[in-house]
Amino acid sequence: MNFASDNIVGASPPVLQALTQANVGAMAAYGGDEITRRVKARFNEIFEREVSVFLVTTGTAANALALSSAVPPYGLCVCHREAHVIDDECGAPEFFMHGAKLAGLPGVGAKLTAEGVSAYLRGLPRAVKQMPPKALSISQVSECGLVYDLGELKELGDLCREHGLAFHMDGARFANALVSLGCTPAEMTWKQGVDILSFGGTKNGCLMAEAIVVFRPELAESLDYRSKRAGQIVSKGRLISAQFEGYFAGDHWYENARHANRLAKLLSAGLSELPGVRLAWETQANEVFPIIPAAMDKALKEAGVLYHPWTELSLPAGETVGPNEALIRLVLSFATREEDVHRVLAIARSASSRQAAE
Amino acid sequence: MNFASDNIVGASPPVLQALTQANVGAMAAYGGDEITRRVKARFNEIFEREVSVFLVTTGTAANALALSSAVPPYGLCVCHREAHVIDDECGAPEFFMHGAKLAGLPGVGAKLTAEGVSAYLRGLPRAVKQMPPKALSISQVSECGLVYDLGELKELGDLCREHGLAFHMDGARFANALVSLGCTPAEMTWKQGVDILSFGGTKNGCLMAEAIVVFRPELAESLDYRSKRAGQIVSKGRLISAQFEGYFAGDHWYENARHANRLAKLLSAGLSELPGVRLAWETQANEVFPIIPAAMDKALKEAGVLYHPWTELSLPAGETVGPNEALIRLVLSFATREEDVHRVLAIARSASSRQAAE
Amino acid sequence: MNFASDNIVGASPPVLQALTQANVGAMAAYGGDEITRRVKARFNEIFEREVSVFLVTTGTAANALALSSAVPPYGLCVCHREAHVIDDECGAPEFFMHGAKLAGLPGVGAKLTAEGVSAYLRGLPRAVKQMPPKALSISQVSECGLVYDLGELKELGDLCREHGLAFHMDGARFANALVSLGCTPAEMTWKQGVDILSFGGTKNGCLMAEAIVVFRPELAESLDYRSKRAGQIVSKGRLISAQFEGYFAGDHWYENARHANRLAKLLSAGLSELPGVRLAWETQANEVFPIIPAAMDKALKEAGVLYHPWTELSLPAGETVGPNEALIRLVLSFATREEDVHRVLAIARSASSRQAAE
Amino acid sequence: MNFASDNIVGASPPVLQALTQANVGAMAAYGGDEITRRVKARFNEIFEREVSVFLVTTGTAANALALSSAVPPYGLCVCHREAHVIDDECGAPEFFMHGAKLAGLPGVGAKLTAEGVSAYLRGLPRAVKQMPPKALSISQVSECGLVYDLGELKELGDLCREHGLAFHMDGARFANALVSLGCTPAEMTWKQGVDILSFGGTKNGCLMAEAIVVFRPELAESLDYRSKRAGQIVSKGRLISAQFEGYFAGDHWYENARHANRLAKLLSAGLSELPGVRLAWETQANEVFPIIPAAMDKALKEAGVLYHPWTELSLPAGETVGPNEALIRLVLSFATREEDVHRVLAIARSASSRQAAE
Repeated sequence: MNFASDNIVGASPPVLQALTQANVGAMAAYGGDEITRRVKARFNEIFEREVSVFLVTTGTAANALALSSAVPPYGLCVCHREAHVIDDECGAPEFFMHGAKLAGLPGVGAKLTAEGVSAYLRGLPRAVKQMPPKALSISQVSECGLVYDLGELKELGDLCREHGLAFHMDGARFANALVSLGCTPAEMTWKQGVDILSFGGTKNGCLMAEAIVVFRPELAESLDYRSKRAGQIVSKGRLISAQFEGYFAGDHWYENARHANRLAKLLSAGLSELPGVRLAWETQANEVFPIIPAAMDKALKEAGVLYHPWTELSLPAGETVGPNEALIRLVLSFATREEDVHRVLAIARSASSRQAAE
Repeated sequence: MNFASDNIVGASPPVLQALTQANVGAMAAYGGDEITRRVKARFNEIFEREVSVFLVTTGTAANALALSSAVPPYGLCVCHREAHVIDDECGAPEFFMHGAKLAGLPGVGAKLTAEGVSAYLRGLPRAVKQMPPKALSISQVSECGLVYDLGELKELGDLCREHGLAFHMDGARFANALVSLGCTPAEMTWKQGVDILSFGGTKNGCLMAEAIVVFRPELAESLDYRSKRAGQIVSKGRLISAQFEGYFAGDHWYENARHANRLAKLLSAGLSELPGVRLAWETQANEVFPIIPAAMDKALKEAGVLYHPWTELSLPAGETVGPNEALIRLVLSFATREEDVHRVLAIARSASSRQAAE
Repeated sequence: MNFASDNIVGASPPVLQALTQANVGAMAAYGGDEITRRVKARFNEIFEREVSVFLVTTGTAANALALSSAVPPYGLCVCHREAHVIDDECGAPEFFMHGAKLAGLPGVGAKLTAEGVSAYLRGLPRAVKQMPPKALSISQVSECGLVYDLGELKELGDLCREHGLAFHMDGARFANALVSLGCTPAEMTWKQGVDILSFGGTKNGCLMAEAIVVFRPELAESLDYRSKRAGQIVSKGRLISAQFEGYFAGDHWYENARHANRLAKLLSAGLSELPGVRLAWETQANEVFPIIPAAMDKALKEAGVLYHPWTELSLPAGETVGPNEALIRLVLSFATREEDVHRVLAIARSASSRQAAE
Repeated sequence: MNFASDNIVGASPPVLQALTQANVGAMAAYGGDEITRRVKARFNEIFEREVSVFLVTTGTAANALALSSAVPPYGLCVCHREAHVIDDECGAPEFFMHGAKLAGLPGVGAKLTAEGVSAYLRGLPRAVKQMPPKALSISQVSECGLVYDLGELKELGDLCREHGLAFHMDGARFANALVSLGCTPAEMTWKQGVDILSFGGTKNGCLMAEAIVVFRPELAESLDYRSKRAGQIVSKGRLISAQFEGYFAGDHWYENARHANRLAKLLSAGLSELPGVRLAWETQANEVFPIIPAAMDKALKEAGVLYHPWTELSLPAGETVGPNEALIRLVLSFATREEDVHRVLAIARSASSRQAAE
């Protein structure tokens, strides 16, 4: 019953199979192979337009490379103060951007609002001492499991246009957001003004496959060189592209994300019914963030359920976690079994009953 | 008949099988898993002492990270002027070292001599305008297919101690060198003074598996952070460690390298017999560098044999490539079939006979 | 009546005279001259011990170089969120530190407390995703005109020792702080645990003279190289050292700072007496931060008094600036004339009377 | 008799006087002052068009900042292998360019030819492993005292256009070159295709005043920010601009350069007459590079004449320095006294006679 993250399992079977098949025979190295060509064409189809695609090995590399193409070394990139790029990557963006700065803004549920960003930008001094803002980066799904809807994306996209910012989306859980909104990849990205996307595959069924998808051609110009000098162009490039081929085939990636999101709803609904349990943020994708009684937290842990505590930093105004409560995160993935969700709910229910009885 | 490089095939079957087996079930992410622990212990056995090991995705990343731990941003790293680190990585070392400089020295067969390095170091101005030398990097196997013997390594190791340089070995073809010398991994590295090693797996049977092996503990201190901020800590870390497990099992890696080296000798000997063919550099590992008549070059290409032309930059004194000759590189790998070597030799022989007849 | 900053005047006469005298004749370039040697010896006397001194051209360079010697590229430097290093230098520290990050903490009057820093450090995740804290930087005088007393410095120094942090002091207004505390340079720095100091000369009488003073020898090792590669070693080095010679002669620097601080007290006391005026932060050095009625703000401006509005970010708990009030900063320098202070007070008084009359 | 360099004296009197006059009174900081505005307008006149000007403190900073605006972190900058930027700045360009690489080409007299650069560019692999060339940097005067004529500059300028390279001129001795060619500043720069210039003042009469002059507007866009984050915007900005005002007034800078060049010719002609003395490179500006008998070298040193030995790296084909000879550099400046030149010649003549007598 491991709900710690969606990267604790291997690849889903169709992805592994595609990888195994691609292993045979000689092919051009460094992405010059046929599979990579096919996969890049597939990205064009998926996004309903020509895009530039760069395959890399980790989400951290995807984010850092994407930002490095958009932000000069003296520039500023605006993001949420809990964003993965500012909080979880040991300074990778600052390294790849050569010292450019991330400005972390507050926002409920780890989401930014056009209003909040706009106020921040207006407040910046117009002086050479102030690094000029050059990009906005958001996480779709957010670090609190929320999904920006198309209207919100549009507003942020318009804001970026107005202020001359590149608009970056960290899509480590892109598929989960897509399934949540029920829209197309194009609608969730460039049609709202997104310029460059970290397209995650690893968390939703791949072994190790991430892509940078570029919608504004000039942001793609340097990425081959930047990727090479970051040690991100793997010699047996088919390794990554084959995974994506398996991932996309028969809409397998949608299936995986639907499964994870559905189980998240199931878990979320089941927990919410219990007395003393409430959601810190709505369950919109594949992560559940309940605030639970300390006794339930203890019972779950003792039963061997694995998950992480979470920070209160982006709770809605007025909401707090009580002294006998715990705010936790449970992540559902393509590999989570429905029976495990029911087991967790049973443990929670039982803890809840015991507490009521006391 | 693809002799272009040793990275144009996939993984060897035992490696792929290990990867497939490791795919099952949930495990801690980011290298916290059991397989990674086992593989790190295995490295200790292989090197007959405690070593620090960092698993990364590419040889470029391994080299650049290794050098970044040894050379401060204002320092100098001495290497051969044809070294992979200076010539083939789009500035990755300079990026990871934050602007530190690589000084490329000449040397026959892309090898450095203690004498040559020593003379270079003595000639440097003692002034603040001169970046201070902090590391020496060599390629074992060299870019011209040569192998440093233990005496040469010892001399370079002693020189590094004397001048306070860290000693880095780019072992992209580590196994091929090992098999060539018939010594142990310990003898080829730390016992001669090597401080930090890029241990290649990809070219000799892995899909994508490289390791940084550190023999001087203080060089290991920052590498976890540096690796993370370079986007080189993959979330499903077992992906890389499982490959190494399959690679090491039953000395599979030695077997692969022996095969490649043996076929290289076979090809080398066969070509050398032909009139008008001579070796630019002795065949010591898995690469053959013959100087062949232009007609033979043409015949091989027309027959579909794939290989690269090579640079004359590091030819022995007095040696040149004539106007009707070509200097080429043929790379043999674990996957090369002996019959393909015989086919190449047959084509060459036939071209040779035709030319004699004319 | 220019109270905008303490860098809006030229050099004080003895400094300019020293510079003029030093202009004559040939001397070794790049700091190899006699004057530079004398000045470095003078720093040893001033700090009552052997120190390493690096002369640079700007405070920004002094801060950024100092931090770069203490914080590796993957490290974290803790400072106040209004610190000059994080807010006013266009990312110079991040540039010189090669992407290392500044973490800006809150604190009344732009001061950090040992307690606040300690709580922050305890809250950091122990994980490779978290950049490890490597230095603490404080501004003495703070950005709100406050001075850390020796006890506060000692507590921060002890905290740095405990957590293995280098302790940096931005002493752009070092002399003003010194005169305020009435202690020795040694007492205000290394005796409380300060490891490296940006010693400002420009704001207190020099034309352009800043020094990095290093108390922990290993932090000095790389600074010559770092300074050279930052374009901070001026060829006619006597230019900077001669200024310091004039600055130190006959305790001219103390005199200048005493003058500025005394006038600040005068201005502060005079303003505080007026109805509707209160100090945002106590006047401890050469800056006055009054909260004044909007009408007085208007009157001062109309009379041609130059100064900057200031941010409310670090006001004491409970304090706010009302809708008809302004928080401003007035800076007094060695060159401020006492009569100008009286003129400002007269204008303020008159505005105050008018308002009372209405 | 100090001929070691042209930075071993202070400022020339008119420059110092301008600085002293500018010291008085309050002015806006950070280059917002009136003098800076006037000086920038003066640069427009001097170059007969609108230019962007950035005042900095050292030639190293001017070069490194200029290159950083032209070369992205993954790019290549072509220069001579003895260029100041590659050899004498402790890696400043690599630091400011964030790891971009300098490629040092050979060339007689430390000059590059369009033919040589063109051949180098054609030989670069067209592959992502190769950092793409983005700029060409030349030194006018060259490191061997030679001056590119207008035709040579034009050829290099055309080459840059053809290959999309920015064309940078390191003009540390700009005035000496100008006087040597007898052309206008416009003719020696943008009219031949120069895009960005390091305009030196320090060596020819200033105390510390260098400027980056930009002819291609897009290269100027980021320079204010880059300069600020490099600690190169001095708070009392008038310090630098006032020097330039004195430097330009009454064509003082031309006068200084003419004096230095004339004395160089005098010294050069005098030495060349002596038996056993020949010039390594023609004397075209203010530096003399004679190859002299070892006995004369000894006599000069014993008489207290100060100068540096020089490298043979860029001697004309066929030329070498014999075992009993020395290649030296003598630098003449605005401050050199004609009588000192005659004294040097007398010592040399006397040494020459003694040798003839033996």
